Amino acid sequence: MKDMLGRENVIDSKIALGLLLENLRGGNPPEVNMNIEAALGMVASRDVISGEDLPSFARSTVDGYAVRAEDTFGATETMPAYLNLFQEILMSQKADFALPEDNASKIPTGGMLPENADAIVMFEHVQIIDDHTIEVLKPVAPGENVIQVGEDVKRGEVVIRTGQRLRPQDIGACAGIGVTQIPVFRKPAVSIISTGDEIVPADEFPGPGKVRDINSYVISGMVSESGGISLRKGILKDEYKTIRDAIETAMTDSEAIVLSGGTSVGTKDMVARIINDIGAPGVLFHGLSLKPGKPMIGGVIKGIPVFGLPGHPAAVSICFELFIKPVLQRLSGLREKWPQYSRKMVRAKISKNIASSAGREEHVRVMLEERGGELWAVPVLGKSGLITTLVRADGTIVIPLHLNGIEAGEAVDVRLF
Amino acid sequence: MKDMLGRENVIDSKIALGLLLENLRGGNPPEVNMNIEAALGMVASRDVISGEDLPSFARSTVDGYAVRAEDTFGATETMPAYLNLFQEILMSQKADFALPEDNASKIPTGGMLPENADAIVMFEHVQIIDDHTIEVLKPVAPGENVIQVGEDVKRGEVVIRTGQRLRPQDIGACAGIGVTQIPVFRKPAVSIISTGDEIVPADEFPGPGKVRDINSYVISGMVSESGGISLRKGILKDEYKTIRDAIETAMTDSEAIVLSGGTSVGTKDMVARIINDIGAPGVLFHGLSLKPGKPMIGGVIKGIPVFGLPGHPAAVSICFELFIKPVLQRLSGLREKWPQYSRKMVRAKISKNIASSAGREEHVRVMLEERGGELWAVPVLGKSGLITTLVRADGTIVIPLHLNGIEAGEAVDVRLF
Repeated sequence: MKDMLGRENVIDSKIALGLLLENLRGGNPPEVNMNIEAALGMVASRDVISGEDLPSFARSTVDGYAVRAEDTFGATETMPAYLNLFQEILMSQKADFALPEDNASKIPTGGMLPENADAIVMFEHVQIIDDHTIEVLKPVAPGENVIQVGEDVKRGEVVIRTGQRLRPQDIGACAGIGVTQIPVFRKPAVSIISTGDEIVPADEFPGPGKVRDINSYVISGMVSESGGISLRKGILKDEYKTIRDAIETAMTDSEAIVLSGGTSVGTKDMVARIINDIGAPGVLFHGLSLKPGKPMIGGVIKGIPVFGLPGHPAAVSICFELFIKPVLQRLSGLREKWPQYSRKMVRAKISKNIASSAGREEHVRVMLEERGGELWAVPVLGKSGLITTLVRADGTIVIPLHLNGIEAGEAVDVRLF
Repeated sequence: MKDMLGRENVIDSKIALGLLLENLRGGNPPEVNMNIEAALGMVASRDVISGEDLPSFARSTVDGYAVRAEDTFGATETMPAYLNLFQEILMSQKADFALPEDNASKIPTGGMLPENADAIVMFEHVQIIDDHTIEVLKPVAPGENVIQVGEDVKRGEVVIRTGQRLRPQDIGACAGIGVTQIPVFRKPAVSIISTGDEIVPADEFPGPGKVRDINSYVISGMVSESGGISLRKGILKDEYKTIRDAIETAMTDSEAIVLSGGTSVGTKDMVARIINDIGAPGVLFHGLSLKPGKPMIGGVIKGIPVFGLPGHPAAVSICFELFIKPVLQRLSGLREKWPQYSRKMVRAKISKNIASSAGREEHVRVMLEERGGELWAVPVLGKSGLITTLVRADGTIVIPLHLNGIEAGEAVDVRLF
């Protein structure tokens, strides 16, 4: 975007993300049925409602004796309640009898309570008198040491909610109510297009003036880690028709498109022009008050997000985290309650002063070091064009738009890679 | 473990983990060669050493003019340096000439510096006079706006270290130096054995007294999330020979064994006896000063860890996090610099008083709630035998061994699921 004087009109990253999100296609992603084990980490596309009570019978939570609670009321060590031993309850067996008054049935943890029994006395509060009689030394309240019918899940209860990412315990809950197939949203496919006449594939030897493709691998890895499927579409010439054709094809087989490379002025402008030429709304921003990442292009064509990333690996990583990751979360159907906390963060002290321009959000790569029991964030020096500055870093810190920098010893939040 | 009076001798969780780790088999896991894209998230089994310099030629980091820096010394807006325009450098082309004194070559970002050029003047510091001449308005230092040969990676430099988990940028760095296959440690296989006569498979209807298998799914999911391969071995009868045979078979096809279920006193003792009978050192602890998770069994047989988990889902989750996950990290060959920070943590205030017994480390499930811009951790009530207490929770907090509880409003660290 240029203003009336032809200057690049940079916007801040929050506004830029907002523009992207509000121009995405509405509606939910397509669904697919998965075996619950394979659904781990995917996003539920429908509420899972239980067709039954869990457990379906009252269970003991301890090893002990099933009793009618009222028969133990007032019992003490000196004035125990005497109960007759009734039929023993065996693990996994149906307790198909009713417990008579002043009787008790031995029961294992997980065992089924017989009719009329409403509490369990633990072994340690019982004295065995003989084969037929026990003394109960402590009273139990009705319901004590019992999981009631439906106490875990009631028939008709929503166990899994649409839009939640399935964690191990969610898979376990499905198993518990007999749901072994579950509808989930299909993962979004992301086309990754490398441009740049100087880029050669990683398995080729780059001649003079040429370098191997690095960014498409970094992007591909970040797509996978963000719950997407990456489609690496190869390395294209910096030509209008070639790139336009590739974007149009990608719009038919993917939910998002990432272009990497094209760092030179001419190429950047060409990518922006192509995005605008293919369809509305086109380029939403071109230039950010962000370092690294300033020359990033963000656009949407007919609901499909298209990202033109700067060529520097550090900028790729930051732009992905700030824009592509939240867009992929939306495209995954994820309705995460706490997206801002879904990252690994750690608090540390910054090891040296860092200057920054007010009016620019700056992301600084840092290594963590423990010194005297304290955690320190040590800035990783080196140009943002070097992939190894990212390799040596453990994470990044943000110097917000309005600050001129931070001082050595200040506390910072490190977002871990 | 029982003491001389026959009481269970509980130990604390740090000591228990130490016992497990020091009895594991030494040496590295087996290696396998992987395509770099497939190696994402795996652990490097060897140092990756670069066979070449990256970049292999000096590159410009900006769009501008390649110059001999000394020709610009002293230049100002009022007293610019006049330079002749020499041959333009094209993207991806070899700059196979030497730059004469007082000359400049137009160069794109990423372009190759010609011989004798040692700095780039950015476009914005240049005034174009005519087709043959430019004015440089600001001096550049030697090396300015240039990535030197080998500045990213030097030939012979270690790019990836043995034992590090491969992140997207690490994969990118491998691509950059032409390494497209990489040796990694094989993921550890974990046998999951469910025991308990009352347990039926998730796809069967449980009759009276029976419940579906939940824990093997929870454990399987946690194994996957911890970088292991889960082998669900089905549901076994609570019989000595059946369980012993299953453990002995699992020792031939997996690197760790997890038994789930067997909550009743007799079964717990039987599992401990089997572990001791198969081989040394056998059971290392049986009973922890931990809630939930107290009845856990941890053992090692001939270097292979064997875990006997309590039957309550909440206990399964805590015991996995405290013991199985760190053991799997070790078995993955991971030498993580900051294991204590490798979790998603968030700071919140606890919403109500929680009592705990000193001498017992207590893990409490919590939901997060935002109230007035602050984050609160709200304890999830319900018995630890209920899977839905885990489903409703966003994470857990720990009340350490030496505390009697925490008070409403205190700050707590929530480990997010």
